[in-house]
Amino acid sequence: MADMDKLAVLVNTFGSSLISVAREVGLNVTLNKGQVTQGVKVSNVCAASLIGIVGSGVQGTAVIMLTSEGFEAVIAAMSGGAIGPDTNNPIAMSVIGELSNMVSGRALIQAAIPGVDVTPPQTFAGENIHNAPASSAGVKCFTLPFSLDPAGQLYLVLSFNAS
Amino acid sequence: MADMDKLAVLVNTFGSSLISVAREVGLNVTLNKGQVTQGVKVSNVCAASLIGIVGSGVQGTAVIMLTSEGFEAVIAAMSGGAIGPDTNNPIAMSVIGELSNMVSGRALIQAAIPGVDVTPPQTFAGENIHNAPASSAGVKCFTLPFSLDPAGQLYLVLSFNAS
Repeated sequence: MADMDKLAVLVNTFGSSLISVAREVGLNVTLNKGQVTQGVKVSNVCAASLIGIVGSGVQGTAVIMLTSEGFEAVIAAMSGGAIGPDTNNPIAMSVIGELSNMVSGRALIQAAIPGVDVTPPQTFAGENIHNAPASSAGVKCFTLPFSLDPAGQLYLVLSFNAS
Repeated sequence: MADMDKLAVLVNTFGSSLISVAREVGLNVTLNKGQVTQGVKVSNVCAASLIGIVGSGVQGTAVIMLTSEGFEAVIAAMSGGAIGPDTNNPIAMSVIGELSNMVSGRALIQAAIPGVDVTPPQTFAGENIHNAPASSAGVKCFTLPFSLDPAGQLYLVLSFNAS
C-alpha cells in the first residue's frame, strides 16, 4: 500500500469505528464532516485519552479529546449514569480510556493492517488542553470533530508516520 | 527476564537517560529520589510530551510533564534562548517533543530490549494537566520528579504493561 492510501484507510476506519462503538454503548455521535481537518483543531478540552500505535511501518497516536459536556455525555452513556463526570475520579477517566481502547482495537482490525500493536491508554485531565501539531517531517495529523447528544464535542486526533 | 525485572530496568534507564540527555543539552536536573512514587503524582503541569512504546512484550507510554517554570527552563536550555516559552507556539512545543524523543531513544538502547518501536511524540499544552493512573490490571505507573535549574519541575511518568 502506498503511504497516503494507508493513512486514508486508517483515518477512515478510525472515524467509522468511533461511530460504531459509540452506537453500541448508547452514545449518539455525529461526525461534522465539513470540519474534518488536516492538522489539529480542538477547543475547550478537559479530558483526553491517548493510545500509541506501532507496527507494519506505521507509528502513531490516536487521541480522543472531550469538552466538559462531551465528557459528561460519554460517562453517562458508558456507565449508565452510575459514575459522576468528575475528571479527578480515576474510574471516570478509565471509562474514556476504555472508549479509546475499543475504538482503536476495532479500527486496527478493520484496517486489516497486520502486526500492529497498541499501548494501554494514557488519560489526561486539565483545563483547555490542546495538542500541538507534530513538527516532524513525515508525521501527518488529522482532527475528526464529532457532536455528541445531548451536548458536547468529541475530537478524534490522529497522528501517523507511515513509512 | 521476569516482569518486575524488566520494569525496574525500564524505570531506571529512563531516569538515567533523562539525566544524561539533560546534561548534554545544558539543562541542570536533579532527581528527587525520595519522591519517586508508584502511581501518578504531578501538579501544575502546563505542557506534556508523550511517546508510545511497543514491542518485545512491553507496551507502555513515557510522558515528560513540565510546570510553567520547568517549560521555560527546558526551552531556554534547548533553544539557547532563541525560542520564547509559549505553549501556543508549535516550535516551542516541538522542543519538548524532541526532548522526549531523545530520552526514550537512549533509554531503549540502554535497556537493551530488542525489537521495541516507539511512536512520534504527541505534545499537549493546557492548564493543570494531570494524568489519571492506569486502571487496567497489569499496567504499572511510576512518577519520577526532577527539579530544574533555575526553577521548575519536570515529571517523568512511565506506564508499562509488561507481559
